[in-house]
Amino acid sequence: MNGDLPVVGDGSGLERDPHLHVEELHLALRNHVLPLEGLRYDLTPTGMHYTLVHYDVPALDAASWQLSLGGLVGAPRTFTLAQLQARPVRTLPVTLECAGDGRALLSPRPISQPWLPGAVGTAAWTGTPLAPILAEAGLSDRAVDVVFTGADHGLEGGVEQDYQRALPRAEAMHPDALLAWAMNGAPLEPQHGAPLRLIIPGWYGMAHVKWLRAIDAIDAPFDGYQHLAYRYGPTRDGTGEPVTLMRVRSMMIPPGFPDFLTRTRVVARGAHVIEGRAWSGRAAIARVELSGDGGATWIDAEVAPADAPHAWQGWRAPWHADRPGAHELVCRATDARGAVQPLDAAWGARGMGNNMAHRVRVLVR
Amino acid sequence: MNGDLPVVGDGSGLERDPHLHVEELHLALRNHVLPLEGLRYDLTPTGMHYTLVHYDVPALDAASWQLSLGGLVGAPRTFTLAQLQARPVRTLPVTLECAGDGRALLSPRPISQPWLPGAVGTAAWTGTPLAPILAEAGLSDRAVDVVFTGADHGLEGGVEQDYQRALPRAEAMHPDALLAWAMNGAPLEPQHGAPLRLIIPGWYGMAHVKWLRAIDAIDAPFDGYQHLAYRYGPTRDGTGEPVTLMRVRSMMIPPGFPDFLTRTRVVARGAHVIEGRAWSGRAAIARVELSGDGGATWIDAEVAPADAPHAWQGWRAPWHADRPGAHELVCRATDARGAVQPLDAAWGARGMGNNMAHRVRVLVR
Repeated sequence: MNGDLPVVGDGSGLERDPHLHVEELHLALRNHVLPLEGLRYDLTPTGMHYTLVHYDVPALDAASWQLSLGGLVGAPRTFTLAQLQARPVRTLPVTLECAGDGRALLSPRPISQPWLPGAVGTAAWTGTPLAPILAEAGLSDRAVDVVFTGADHGLEGGVEQDYQRALPRAEAMHPDALLAWAMNGAPLEPQHGAPLRLIIPGWYGMAHVKWLRAIDAIDAPFDGYQHLAYRYGPTRDGTGEPVTLMRVRSMMIPPGFPDFLTRTRVVARGAHVIEGRAWSGRAAIARVELSGDGGATWIDAEVAPADAPHAWQGWRAPWHADRPGAHELVCRATDARGAVQPLDAAWGARGMGNNMAHRVRVLVR
Repeated sequence: MNGDLPVVGDGSGLERDPHLHVEELHLALRNHVLPLEGLRYDLTPTGMHYTLVHYDVPALDAASWQLSLGGLVGAPRTFTLAQLQARPVRTLPVTLECAGDGRALLSPRPISQPWLPGAVGTAAWTGTPLAPILAEAGLSDRAVDVVFTGADHGLEGGVEQDYQRALPRAEAMHPDALLAWAMNGAPLEPQHGAPLRLIIPGWYGMAHVKWLRAIDAIDAPFDGYQHLAYRYGPTRDGTGEPVTLMRVRSMMIPPGFPDFLTRTRVVARGAHVIEGRAWSGRAAIARVELSGDGGATWIDAEVAPADAPHAWQGWRAPWHADRPGAHELVCRATDARGAVQPLDAAWGARGMGNNMAHRVRVLVR
């Protein structure tokens, strides 16, 4: 949209304009949320699952594609897709959420992909476990981090890069870490990382490296660009706490029907059942509460059991729309570790991990 | 986002603020373009195909779903999905584009789904021809329009409605009009109209009614809300020319790689081949031109033959990036009827049919 670089988002500061810029619109139109009515599906239909692509979706040919495994391993090697698919196969339902989900609700609003809540989805991911591959290759005792490199290439914060994220050694060796080639029973679509991506259950989406082309074990904590960018805290200098596992969160399916343009929800008077999903990285959901009055009073929702450890859990609660006019529904979850979804956003310069309670305004008629 | 209705988009006027409002962001995040690098695929992967959903994606059960056929027919009836699937089956590659594609480039900007160019896609749609169904039911000679009703329900411009669009009788009887249940070889995903949608090749997307639940023949031109809203011209009062077939258009795959936030394209010095697609409703593409200097000079692109009459055609043209700095690439198409993609946008109050030449700014280094 601009002839010169950089125009916005150069890391120099925050944008205090509550309106949105055309560059942010460009991102908002390329990437997309799960439309919240899509929370009704246990497994998100592939095309409804949120996507965030930092650069371009790369053009890769599965037939000629290769994965290299190197760095601090005894036996560096490459894999074709067929070689990986000949290994043991596992399918896991996993909830993925973008760490920036809800960023656009912050004030002042950090300039980046301007997510309103919904950058989430749950799919059945099929692949082969990573840990045995690393073990067979002879992962060195000196390996501290394992770096995953994608084929997507771009410029970000002034740094030209292939997208790269690392996992601590123990996470790379997690039994549920997968090299995945299928989603919901079909080969990965290009925007979801075809032909191969990492799935590391429990982590925010930035860790599930797409278009995976290289895995390298290194002897020090990885300090690439994406590890400086995905940080909590009040500054953009890469010194904040790293973003890792998904924070506890619930969202609801907005009741009633929308006005096309204002997205205001119109709801009939009477009894309703509000349904939604809740999730937390590496923890089950212990409780979901619903408020029909903006958070003044709460009732406990019925929460489905955590049958799949890495997938969201359904919940439902009654709500009686007894008075015409504007109402604010709010839901919040608590996980098994006792973490509670906060009522207000915790502001950070990068807009990460805003898991504030989900608020939906409705108009009862 | 608002407790009261309506806040914006009430039809009372145009928004002259060049920035975007949170309600528009909500739409931009729910709906999505084909990321333009996705123009590389002859058939758009399902999840990359543009989507525009006016209200909510409805929850429909294919097993119990029924289509009713009524109005001015001799034998009204209903169909189950299995009954439709037992009829003759056809698969057609069809390009669909939203009539509002490129709306956000207009100034002043009509408030609606704020599309930047890319609300397009080409899929292989599988279904059964509609014309024999209407003929077998005994379509009356008095039938002027055939109305298609979807299961999606909402409020728009103050009118509560199920989404409805009609086709003139001759278009409903077009041999390539399909009742489609599959896209790219798989059952429709919910956001693309599952279990059944209309495909009417050549028309802008609003005519391809999703979540189809009823077809009714009527004896006068249909004047439902969506027929007043999808209009060309300077007013929002429903008096403009109706939006029907897709206007001629080309788009290019942006060369080089992007900056994450500004989306500025960085391109290497030297020889490039620029590729893209071009389409026009019910007309083949006769010519595509590329300019490397913002439209001052043009060269003719090589255009692939129109093998599938309703699908876009590929094109390619050389471009030599000989000078570092900012450049503007522009492409424009001409169809077999002589319609040419204009260099500038034709403004309309609804922002429909902005098929202006596609401009991509790049930075050569």
